[in-house]
Amino acid sequence: MPAQQEKFDPKFTEHVLNTIGPKCSDRNRVVLGSLIKHIHDFAREVELTVDEWMLGVHFINSIGQASTPIRNEGQRISDVIGLESLVDEIAHKLVTDGTIAPTSSSILGPFWSPNAPFRELGGSIIQDPAPLGKPALMHGKVIDMVTGKGIPNAIFDIWQASANGKYDFQDPENQSDNNLRGKFRTDANGEYHFYMLKPTAYSLPTDGPAGVLLKLLDRHPMRPAHIHLMITHDDYKPVTTQIFPKDDPYLATDTVYAVKDDLVIDFTPREGDPNAKLDLEYSVKLAPKNYDGISPVSQTTIGLMDQTSGQARL
Amino acid sequence: MPAQQEKFDPKFTEHVLNTIGPKCSDRNRVVLGSLIKHIHDFAREVELTVDEWMLGVHFINSIGQASTPIRNEGQRISDVIGLESLVDEIAHKLVTDGTIAPTSSSILGPFWSPNAPFRELGGSIIQDPAPLGKPALMHGKVIDMVTGKGIPNAIFDIWQASANGKYDFQDPENQSDNNLRGKFRTDANGEYHFYMLKPTAYSLPTDGPAGVLLKLLDRHPMRPAHIHLMITHDDYKPVTTQIFPKDDPYLATDTVYAVKDDLVIDFTPREGDPNAKLDLEYSVKLAPKNYDGISPVSQTTIGLMDQTSGQARL
Repeated sequence: MPAQQEKFDPKFTEHVLNTIGPKCSDRNRVVLGSLIKHIHDFAREVELTVDEWMLGVHFINSIGQASTPIRNEGQRISDVIGLESLVDEIAHKLVTDGTIAPTSSSILGPFWSPNAPFRELGGSIIQDPAPLGKPALMHGKVIDMVTGKGIPNAIFDIWQASANGKYDFQDPENQSDNNLRGKFRTDANGEYHFYMLKPTAYSLPTDGPAGVLLKLLDRHPMRPAHIHLMITHDDYKPVTTQIFPKDDPYLATDTVYAVKDDLVIDFTPREGDPNAKLDLEYSVKLAPKNYDGISPVSQTTIGLMDQTSGQARL
Repeated sequence: MPAQQEKFDPKFTEHVLNTIGPKCSDRNRVVLGSLIKHIHDFAREVELTVDEWMLGVHFINSIGQASTPIRNEGQRISDVIGLESLVDEIAHKLVTDGTIAPTSSSILGPFWSPNAPFRELGGSIIQDPAPLGKPALMHGKVIDMVTGKGIPNAIFDIWQASANGKYDFQDPENQSDNNLRGKFRTDANGEYHFYMLKPTAYSLPTDGPAGVLLKLLDRHPMRPAHIHLMITHDDYKPVTTQIFPKDDPYLATDTVYAVKDDLVIDFTPREGDPNAKLDLEYSVKLAPKNYDGISPVSQTTIGLMDQTSGQARL
């Protein structure tokens, strides 16, 4: 909107960017410079009022104030505006553009735990009773996308909400630590199998800033039912993803925009198993770590990031 | 950057915007839609990495966590990226474009208090001793910008940091409540006079997220010395502004970008006054409330704003 921008000092943004110092790293200058420019362009484009700006300041402050060690409201806000899904696409898009492709990635979300226990193949991640839950046997193979062969010793990490739509650490009254979480190692054929629940659609918590934002946008807070997966092996590029039962009504309007066509799956009836009346067969394709047919978008990293822990030093 | 954007799903942002519901107000749709679009464009433009995104999430959370009832870190971050100054320009720019113009506005900042006491003309806002401070008599007139006449009974609200660069509520060990704050009513001629300190340059607090951001940008945290003013009268458009001594070394690189040319002032020596060795003459021009020669940019307001208190209901 060039006409609109000329209403205001055309050199203001340039002046702000010119105060960035000589010791600012190239990447910080690119990333933070672009962010400042886009925020200024946004303010000019909508002629942001003082009241709206102050509302935004209060909103930003409220995000951290609603966050706790087990509640990451900043990540949730970023999910609700589609940013985590977009960043996931940017990181992984080009890898999936070939004639052969690994399983699509999807967002990690705020509920992964580094502490999920290893469990035996054939075991169950259902530690606590869920009267409304529908147990299922999930089974399949982790496959090398190039050779088509099974990958032994891959780690298959799964986490899911219970039938009430809550994860273990959101629901200490009903769930013990690591309920509906577990890591499995694929066998010599690259195969895995274990018991879990058919997943349930649930609402994001709406008692914080994400709820305020969804209300401002007149949007529902629902995630379609899904199962989180993270599959890793030293010789392969890891994949973090989610899979979605095809009968879910929220597939097209997932409030965090994580659904992709190839991640929609189907449960089928299971006969003669006292532990489960549903069956889910699902196989995962991984790209070899040194596969260079198609490279992912190069990933450079901002300063002040601790590469070991992945945590920002703030 | 059209070539770059085509790397990624060209319909993703549209999809996110299409989930905004029918009951979303027109203004919310414009403001939040534009914000989401600019954040997506930013992420695609710089190919934001997962690590950078997670650093951003932690950074956003840290803003609210550093904020307290007397520390508004969200406002400070917005100041450091120039957003408060830009919003101030958007709100007031057109008013100042005529051949006659009111005193330029500048940003409110986080240190204004609604509780500053009324004081008598000729009194002092210096309640507590500041051995390094330089007392000055500040005096002048509040003027109708159209008639050039003085405006009696205007409220002249002033606040400033002490010689150590701190405001009263940041510095309870050295300063009593409302030290270096006060409201004065102009006399029958529209004139005011009182004692205050020549202001001192100071650093923003760098022990929080604003300090992290300034370090990432290799920028100094200094504000040039300044005096905050808010002048109001029922019959005139109010002005909130800051004035800056012309001998300050940070005028060109104010870390919150609040300096404007017509707000630079000069202290002169004062003779024969036991209370002050410096003098500052400063007059303020106000636009009549119904002045419509040049209208300000129309100001519409986002939903969920409580117009009475000016506070967001979050």
